[in-house]
Amino acid sequence: MAAPTSTHFADTLLKAIEKKGTPLIVGLDPVYEQLPESIRSHREMNDADDAEAAVDAILEFCTRLLKVVAPHVPAVKINSAFFERYYAYGVEAFGAVVQEAAAHGLIVINDAKRADIGNSSERYALATLADPEFTSMVGAVGADAVTVNPYMGQDSVAPFIKIAQEQDKGVFILVRTSNPGAAEIQDAVLQDGTPVYQHVGKLVAGWGAEFIGERGYSAIGAVVGATNPGQLAALRELLPSVLFLVPGYGAQGGSAKDIAGAFKADGTGAIINSSRGIIYAHKEQKFAGMPWEKAVEAAVVAAKADIAGALAR
Amino acid sequence: MAAPTSTHFADTLLKAIEKKGTPLIVGLDPVYEQLPESIRSHREMNDADDAEAAVDAILEFCTRLLKVVAPHVPAVKINSAFFERYYAYGVEAFGAVVQEAAAHGLIVINDAKRADIGNSSERYALATLADPEFTSMVGAVGADAVTVNPYMGQDSVAPFIKIAQEQDKGVFILVRTSNPGAAEIQDAVLQDGTPVYQHVGKLVAGWGAEFIGERGYSAIGAVVGATNPGQLAALRELLPSVLFLVPGYGAQGGSAKDIAGAFKADGTGAIINSSRGIIYAHKEQKFAGMPWEKAVEAAVVAAKADIAGALAR
Repeated sequence: MAAPTSTHFADTLLKAIEKKGTPLIVGLDPVYEQLPESIRSHREMNDADDAEAAVDAILEFCTRLLKVVAPHVPAVKINSAFFERYYAYGVEAFGAVVQEAAAHGLIVINDAKRADIGNSSERYALATLADPEFTSMVGAVGADAVTVNPYMGQDSVAPFIKIAQEQDKGVFILVRTSNPGAAEIQDAVLQDGTPVYQHVGKLVAGWGAEFIGERGYSAIGAVVGATNPGQLAALRELLPSVLFLVPGYGAQGGSAKDIAGAFKADGTGAIINSSRGIIYAHKEQKFAGMPWEKAVEAAVVAAKADIAGALAR
Repeated sequence: MAAPTSTHFADTLLKAIEKKGTPLIVGLDPVYEQLPESIRSHREMNDADDAEAAVDAILEFCTRLLKVVAPHVPAVKINSAFFERYYAYGVEAFGAVVQEAAAHGLIVINDAKRADIGNSSERYALATLADPEFTSMVGAVGADAVTVNPYMGQDSVAPFIKIAQEQDKGVFILVRTSNPGAAEIQDAVLQDGTPVYQHVGKLVAGWGAEFIGERGYSAIGAVVGATNPGQLAALRELLPSVLFLVPGYGAQGGSAKDIAGAFKADGTGAIINSSRGIIYAHKEQKFAGMPWEKAVEAAVVAAKADIAGALAR
């Protein structure tokens, strides 16, 4: 008889990383104007001004993109902002992309960066993470994990953790983000010498301490940017049970060397997101002339090799 | 010839406060299960399980509620979470409620608490604040102001400020929120003795310093909860050009006395939000037996008097 298989989010994610042989994940940040010409050319010229038509093109792009990347990576991160920008049309398409990704066996992270006070955050947790329970959505699944903003504290995060516990899902809480402005607040130093981002990191570890899987990682992870390798390595040391979702690799400037510190000696500990460097590979000189899906595949393969090389060192 | 009228958000808000004679605003946090029986009773029993039907009831409730409160208050705050919870149906209804509120001449605050890195935040700013520019939405307006989470720093907030500047709108940035968990991060004390919330408050004042209206207030305001009167008064002293959006009055436990410190001696400086205490007035013992719209109106009138009393002291 086979040993029982853990359905804990962190265990599922680690298994998928091993199966695909990479901690690379692909970020979907679709902007109509950036889509490959072949997706836009069979449509009307004014689609950019028509929310429904723009969403239609984005949906085609995401559907085809997921087919290309699904064999190569364990997960995708879908940024809600790029869908919400098209109002209800975009929100509907977001749900469709989640279903499509799940059908390919991909783990889906909803990059929604939400939080509010308790009863409002509960509504956000239902909207962004829970499996939909409405009769008109029977069979639809929610994302497997969601990103959450910690500024409002534990009770703002708790509804997300509750859904994660009930439905074997995950939460990634912003700890040190990859953008230039992050330093103003996240790097401010507290009286005991701890920078705010480490203070938040320790809170995140505490919030997830009751929720550890078989492999030693909590289902409550942290978002830690690739753009400051020293901070990344410091947090890896400080938070052994916390999985990191690392944005900032690729288009934002983080290199494979920069992200090496996110991992433990056994190669576990992080997933590395690349968005624009992969989904808009058709715009890059080195993939010039390739059909866009071939360019995306080449970019995924190259990024996997790049990350594997840095981890082997 | 009349003097030119300022269209700066802070001036518009102050004028509306004077016209309605109160800094009270009403928060719309609609939950299907909490709606008055008369709104739910002419619908199917299983509407709670049907997103479209639940949204239909919520839309009727909000439309009727806006008609009741519009003569009494300068603005409404619509919490996006309660609409997003119903997926695309809810997002569409959110837009409809914004149009309805605007048609009543109310200033509309989208309580969305968004933020992300620069290019993603730009999408959120378009989705939550900008007037929609898609051809299918001609004539529709966006909210007049939006709430934003500061954890990711200036570049995450900048796209919202840019839209506010271009379209005479406002931004309220979370500084000290009203929930119990807020203390963990917001009250942490920095090396120079400044609590994080005051550090963030000073950043907010700086971000809005170039954007001051005729009355001396910036279009970039701050969210400061009513649940800690001492912090509220300290921030009022510290940030003379920053308008406060004060949640936590009423159902969350803040009293009129607690919010008095949000105001300057001239009575300006803040708007006070009440959500559940007004929209669910029909559930309160003191309004028992009243039709729900009468209960709402009575609750608004009582809250206005309560706040006026505290300000007169």
